[in-house]
Amino acid sequence: MKVQLIPTIEQRIQIKEPPIRARPRLRTPGFSRMIRFSKPPEMETLMSVKNAFYAQSGGVTSVINASACGVIQAVRANKGKIGKLYAGRNGIIGALREELIDTGKESAATIAALRHTPSGAFGSCRHKLKSIEENRAEYERLIEVFKAHNIGYFFYNGGGDSADTCLKVSQLSANLGYPVQAIHIPKTIDNDLPLTDNCPGFGSVAKYIAVSTREAALDVASMCETSTKVFILEAMGRHAGWIAAAGGLAAEREGDAPHIILFPEIAFDREKFLKRVQRCVKRYGYCVIVDSEGAQYADGRFLADSGVRDAFGHAQLGGVAPTLAEMVKSEFGYKYHWAVADYLQRSARHIASATDVEQAYAVGKAAVDLALAGKNAVMVSIERGKGKRYSWRVGDAPLDKVANVEKMMPRHFISRDGFSITEPARDYLAPLIVGEDYPPYQKGLPRYARLKNELVPRKLKKRFKV
Amino acid sequence: MKVQLIPTIEQRIQIKEPPIRARPRLRTPGFSRMIRFSKPPEMETLMSVKNAFYAQSGGVTSVINASACGVIQAVRANKGKIGKLYAGRNGIIGALREELIDTGKESAATIAALRHTPSGAFGSCRHKLKSIEENRAEYERLIEVFKAHNIGYFFYNGGGDSADTCLKVSQLSANLGYPVQAIHIPKTIDNDLPLTDNCPGFGSVAKYIAVSTREAALDVASMCETSTKVFILEAMGRHAGWIAAAGGLAAEREGDAPHIILFPEIAFDREKFLKRVQRCVKRYGYCVIVDSEGAQYADGRFLADSGVRDAFGHAQLGGVAPTLAEMVKSEFGYKYHWAVADYLQRSARHIASATDVEQAYAVGKAAVDLALAGKNAVMVSIERGKGKRYSWRVGDAPLDKVANVEKMMPRHFISRDGFSITEPARDYLAPLIVGEDYPPYQKGLPRYARLKNELVPRKLKKRFKV
Repeated sequence: MKVQLIPTIEQRIQIKEPPIRARPRLRTPGFSRMIRFSKPPEMETLMSVKNAFYAQSGGVTSVINASACGVIQAVRANKGKIGKLYAGRNGIIGALREELIDTGKESAATIAALRHTPSGAFGSCRHKLKSIEENRAEYERLIEVFKAHNIGYFFYNGGGDSADTCLKVSQLSANLGYPVQAIHIPKTIDNDLPLTDNCPGFGSVAKYIAVSTREAALDVASMCETSTKVFILEAMGRHAGWIAAAGGLAAEREGDAPHIILFPEIAFDREKFLKRVQRCVKRYGYCVIVDSEGAQYADGRFLADSGVRDAFGHAQLGGVAPTLAEMVKSEFGYKYHWAVADYLQRSARHIASATDVEQAYAVGKAAVDLALAGKNAVMVSIERGKGKRYSWRVGDAPLDKVANVEKMMPRHFISRDGFSITEPARDYLAPLIVGEDYPPYQKGLPRYARLKNELVPRKLKKRFKV
Repeated sequence: MKVQLIPTIEQRIQIKEPPIRARPRLRTPGFSRMIRFSKPPEMETLMSVKNAFYAQSGGVTSVINASACGVIQAVRANKGKIGKLYAGRNGIIGALREELIDTGKESAATIAALRHTPSGAFGSCRHKLKSIEENRAEYERLIEVFKAHNIGYFFYNGGGDSADTCLKVSQLSANLGYPVQAIHIPKTIDNDLPLTDNCPGFGSVAKYIAVSTREAALDVASMCETSTKVFILEAMGRHAGWIAAAGGLAAEREGDAPHIILFPEIAFDREKFLKRVQRCVKRYGYCVIVDSEGAQYADGRFLADSGVRDAFGHAQLGGVAPTLAEMVKSEFGYKYHWAVADYLQRSARHIASATDVEQAYAVGKAAVDLALAGKNAVMVSIERGKGKRYSWRVGDAPLDKVANVEKMMPRHFISRDGFSITEPARDYLAPLIVGEDYPPYQKGLPRYARLKNELVPRKLKKRFKV
């Protein structure tokens, strides 16, 4: 599939239905639109190298740019095998709109700085491709843009929903006759992707929550005699309690905070919760709670559902902490404080886990290696070594087994009473937050990369509304 | 005042009104209760050295323990001049209850670790001494405890309310005839103490808010095309907007976040605010707001007053961010996110300002030097050098000019439209967040000091209810 020829820009702009010469090498029946023109031999060589497309998808993390850095540096290291690397402006939308950022315009220093820059440097989006049956136009548009820019590699950096999109793109060849190798690069603070030991992005948010829990708990402990007795930290995590669970790492000894963790996996029981709060305050003088934004009642109602839905149809959550605080206040009259870390937790590159940064970089780099090895429809995975000492390596997993599967906390990671983590959970979580990877500072503030994000000139006349 | 003798423990426990021999050196008329017993000459020498009392007061900070470290190390370095250093368990309440922590029981390593440990290691409290007329019993109790433990130095580490308490203690000699040197060690994240260029504790929370604003803004910028358009970070600061102002340091260029800062000093105008939000979203694609918890309407009503009052009669605030978010949502329908950092910001030792840590340590050390130089009723201050390059040194200020005075943001530090900081504000704020002072880590988490906090045996029979 590596040798493919495309018309010149001028030709392409003119041609809506270009003359076709089917390539016998390709097995998929739909592959009937590949085009071949007569061209000088040096152009053949030039055009035989496919370009690549990289996009960031869904909620960003403090290390997704480290994956971008891995992809870009690997592509640059493979000159002659992969052509240009385009990044979608605002994710897959950039492909649909033909807004392609030329990563080649960025200096090596800027690209290196991506490794320590949080959030999505090229822009991300919440846009889930529907099935081909439901929205054929989007897929045809993608192919049009990919063709126009000679794109043969699709690197998609996202979570569960993005794995689904990536899988659909990987099937373009089979379904619409356009050959593209789609590699999914895992990214999600939620840590809910299957077939990978953990997800890049999670280790850093886990570290943030564990560090913040430990620090805020010291604050409450020092104030509780005459002031705040209950402190609630709300962590992200819509359906899986991984992030809230990481708060549990703050505790080292009996009595250490957090005293209560609320997981989405465990149905919230008001009476049991309040009883536990009271017991903690009586025993330790204070009570620190880490709650997951996804904490819910037995009937599936979220403790704080704002009613807003995002593009994926998910409820926009937030505000469980004040709800719980009110509950505690009205029952016992305890003075409370609460914090909702929200975006702070997933953008806190200043306290990123070094392990997480390394893994994020590694999965980006590995995606390029997998592509060059001819893989398609796979997700780069992280495999944990069997030894007692933590070790890991990258692997790959079939995308169709990844898409639309959410990995919850296993029940044995949560204590019987449902309020804390177990030793196996601790063993799993602890290595993921190890190591600090501080960004450089200037005048007291982290120096994060600023990209030019220059767009490649459009090749298509048609605009596409997303 | 240095030579003073007290009875043995046994004697003191027996004696409620010990025999008195007035010391002619003392000028205050009320000084009629000083006691002198016949004793062997070696005891005279031993007892001539006064002990010291140190207490942490009010809301804690990420560097108040650095001040404690400064005090303790300075006392240890002045063996023979100051005797034992007792810390109040939970602040001044520890003195009233005769719950005195023997700091001498802590190893040099533990004390050194205080420098990088957030919050109040000995416990703090919100307990403001009333006037002597209103609650004479408390002052008499203080004297009783001070006498019993031969305490002649009072180091009080707190903010504005604590300066008031410290001032009252400094007047014990004049009012109740007990000589004690009271030195106030400034501490407040609110940065609202007068007669000092800035307050230890502020620089670190300022850095936290500036860093978090910069990081979260990158997140919003990368998501705004299809998702969150407005992000609101709520900072602490009840009456003075210093902390929210520090968020302004995140911006370097036109268009950088934060786009709006809400100060308590500027009356909140709903229409003007909403108009500005809309303008930002139209111009930049998103809008980042840093609001002060003390943001208020022209009539003084806080935007979010929970109705709860603390021991000082202050409103317990929180939740301005969700209030603003709702406002924006109902007006424009923009998707929003908000964060309330609450205790996280003031306990975030992991991202403390090195300048702040140094100053916090220095004011603690200086308090001991001032005491040894015979000063009373002063606050250690930080004086900024006149040069263009930032420099500072410690000084001292009279406590009666400090107590109960709140230093607001000067109007010329706030832009004419009331939504951002000016260059003079930037010049003032910027040096305070410079430098990183990372705590040591173990297994991915900061290693903070754990004190034994052993109490000194009680010498008084009487208990005192606080």
